[in-house]
Amino acid sequence: MFEFSIEAISGRARAGVFNTPHGKLLTPVFAPVGTQATVKTLTPRQLQEIGTSLVLANTYHLYLRPGAELVRDMQGLHEFMQWPLPLLTDSGGFQVFSLAKTRSVDADGVTFKSHIDGSTHRFTPEASIAIQEHLGADIIMAFDECSDPNDHAYSVVAMQRTHAWAERCVHAKRRPDQALFGIVQGGVEPALRLQSAQFIASLDTPGIAVGGLSVGESKAEMHAMLDVVVAALPVDRPRYLMGVGTPEDLIDGIARGVDIFDCVLPTRLARHHSAFSAHGRLNLMNAQFARDEGPIDAACDCYTCETFSRAYVRHLITAKELLAATLLSIHNVRALIRLVDGIRASIVDATFEERAPAWLEQWRGNAVRL
Amino acid sequence: MFEFSIEAISGRARAGVFNTPHGKLLTPVFAPVGTQATVKTLTPRQLQEIGTSLVLANTYHLYLRPGAELVRDMQGLHEFMQWPLPLLTDSGGFQVFSLAKTRSVDADGVTFKSHIDGSTHRFTPEASIAIQEHLGADIIMAFDECSDPNDHAYSVVAMQRTHAWAERCVHAKRRPDQALFGIVQGGVEPALRLQSAQFIASLDTPGIAVGGLSVGESKAEMHAMLDVVVAALPVDRPRYLMGVGTPEDLIDGIARGVDIFDCVLPTRLARHHSAFSAHGRLNLMNAQFARDEGPIDAACDCYTCETFSRAYVRHLITAKELLAATLLSIHNVRALIRLVDGIRASIVDATFEERAPAWLEQWRGNAVRL
Repeated sequence: MFEFSIEAISGRARAGVFNTPHGKLLTPVFAPVGTQATVKTLTPRQLQEIGTSLVLANTYHLYLRPGAELVRDMQGLHEFMQWPLPLLTDSGGFQVFSLAKTRSVDADGVTFKSHIDGSTHRFTPEASIAIQEHLGADIIMAFDECSDPNDHAYSVVAMQRTHAWAERCVHAKRRPDQALFGIVQGGVEPALRLQSAQFIASLDTPGIAVGGLSVGESKAEMHAMLDVVVAALPVDRPRYLMGVGTPEDLIDGIARGVDIFDCVLPTRLARHHSAFSAHGRLNLMNAQFARDEGPIDAACDCYTCETFSRAYVRHLITAKELLAATLLSIHNVRALIRLVDGIRASIVDATFEERAPAWLEQWRGNAVRL
Repeated sequence: MFEFSIEAISGRARAGVFNTPHGKLLTPVFAPVGTQATVKTLTPRQLQEIGTSLVLANTYHLYLRPGAELVRDMQGLHEFMQWPLPLLTDSGGFQVFSLAKTRSVDADGVTFKSHIDGSTHRFTPEASIAIQEHLGADIIMAFDECSDPNDHAYSVVAMQRTHAWAERCVHAKRRPDQALFGIVQGGVEPALRLQSAQFIASLDTPGIAVGGLSVGESKAEMHAMLDVVVAALPVDRPRYLMGVGTPEDLIDGIARGVDIFDCVLPTRLARHHSAFSAHGRLNLMNAQFARDEGPIDAACDCYTCETFSRAYVRHLITAKELLAATLLSIHNVRALIRLVDGIRASIVDATFEERAPAWLEQWRGNAVRL
C-alpha cells in the first residue's frame, strides 16, 4: 500500500501512480475541496463524471460539524459522503489559524473557539491524528503551524513547532490503511525551507506536503521556495502543494516537480459567477453574455459546456438560481482536471517542457485570485 | 398533433396518451415547476433520470427576466433551458394577481408593477399569447383571472372576464405547434363552475384546465368543484388541475378524472428540508436523523435514496450546504412521479379503485401544505 511509482519524467515534472486503499491515484492530480464532506453543489456522481479522482475534506470543519465520532460511527467519511475514490483530510491546523474566533498556541497544541458557536476546543498533534483516523481518509496530514511569510521570527518558531508536532503525529498514528504526510514550513526563507524539507523528509512519511505557500507571498517567492524544497525531497515520494491553485499555479507547480494539488478556487469562483476558460476568466453575470448562444468554453468537454449556452448560465445567475453554481462548478472543476490530465499526458509523451510555455500563456488570464 | 387517446379507465380515472411536438405524454402526469426556466437545483439530466416527462415554466417570470424576445431569439424555451420533452407555460395571470406589487384590472387586461424592480407592465390576452408563442412551450394557457373563493361577486366577474379573455386567446393564437388550453374558473360555487366548464368546453381547445382551486378553499370544496367540472367536460380531452398538489391531492384528483398536475411543492419542500415518504413527511433537519444510516424512504428508487443516508442529508442541511436542496428535490419530485406512475399502472390493470384507499391512507401524512 502507498507505493509511488514514477511512470515518466519531463524536466522536473513527473507522471506517477500512487496506490491507495481506494484505488490508484494518477499524478499529477488536482483535488477539488469538499470542506464539509461535500464539494459544494456537486453530487459524487457529477464529480466522477468530470474525472475527479481525489477529494479533500477539512478536519476542522468536520470535527465541529457533524463531529468526527459521528462520521466514524457512520462507517467513515467515504461511506458518509459516498465518495468511492481516494480522500485526503488536512490536519485542521490551517483552519484553526485562519477561521477560529480566537486561538492560543503553546508547545503542546492550540486552544481555539469555534467560528460556528464560540465553544472552546483544543487540537494537539495527537488529537488531529485521532480525528483523522475517525474520518478515515486515505491520505492524512501532520498537524502544522502556518506562519505569516513576512514575519521571520514567527516563521522560525512555527517551523520548529511544525517539526516537533510532525514527529508526534508519526508516533500517534495507528491505522495502517492511511498514509500520513509530513508538511514542510519555513515561510519565504530558503534556509528555513531547506532545513524544513530535510527534517520532514527524514521522518520517512509516504508523501510530503509543502504548506505555507499561496498565503500572501509573491509568485516569485512561491517558485523560489518550491525550487529549494523540491530539490531537497526524495524523488520516490509524492509531493503535495497545499491550497494551490490557479491554472497557472498548477502548470508552474508541476514544472517544479509537484504531484498533488488542492484548492477551493474552482468551486468558489463558481459561486461568484466566474468561469475558467482558455481565453481568460469570464464573469458570466456580465451583460455581454445575455444573448451569447455559445458554450462557456468551446474547447471544454463538461456537461455544462456540452449542454448550455452562456446566455442560459447568465440568466440563471441574474435570476439567482442555485443551478448556476452547480453548472459553473462542474465546468471549473473539469477545467482544472482536464488541464492536469493534459499535462500528465504530455509528461508521458515527453512534450511537457515544450508545451508548458504555451499552456502558461493560454491560462495566464485565469490567474486572478479571489 | 395533440391527439389524446385513452388507454384505460378505472372508475373516473383515466390512463391516456397526449401527443405533443416533443413526444407522447403519458397521463396522468405530474409536472415539476421550473419557474425561471429551471426546476430549482436540478439539471435537465437529473430531471430525466427521475422520470420527469413534463415541466411547467412561468410566463410572468420569464417575461420579466430574461424577457420573452430573448428566449425566442435563443431558439425558444426548450433550447434555452435544454429540456427535450414537453413543456407547459402558464398565462402569467396567476402571478400577476399573486406576485406583482400593484395591479389594476380592466375589461381589456391587467396593468401591474414588477415584483423585481417596480417597473410598469401590461398583460392582455393577446399579450399573454404572444409571449407564450415567443417561449414556445408545447402546451400554453389562456389568460385568466383567479378569484378569491370566498367572494361571490368577484367570482362571477372574474369568471366572466376569464371567458371573454379565453375567446380572445383562441382568436389571438397563431402557432400550430402549440396546444392552447382554456381555463375553468368560478370560485367554489357549483353553478358558476358548471357554467364555466360548459363555456370553456365550447371553445373546443385541445385540453382544458381547472384554475382557482387549491387557493385557500377546503378539500371538500375542491372535490365538489372537481366533481361538477369534470362531469361537464368532454371525455376526449386532457384535464389539467393547476397548481396541485400534495400526494393526497394527486390521488384524489386522478380519482376524479384529472390527467395533468403541476406544483412547486416537491422542490419548495426540499428547500425547507422536508421530504415526502410513505411514512409521512420528514423534516430532515430534525436531530433524530443525525445518526440514521437508512435512506430517506427505503421504498424509493431515486439517486438520493439509493446513495445517501438520512444522517448525511441532515448534516448537509445543518451545515447549510446547497447539495441538501438538490438531493431532497431529486427525492421529492421522484416521489410524486413514482406515485403517479404507480397509479397509471393501476388504472391500466384495473386495480386503481381497489388500491386508491390504501394509497390515500399511506400518503395522508404528507398532505400538510407549506
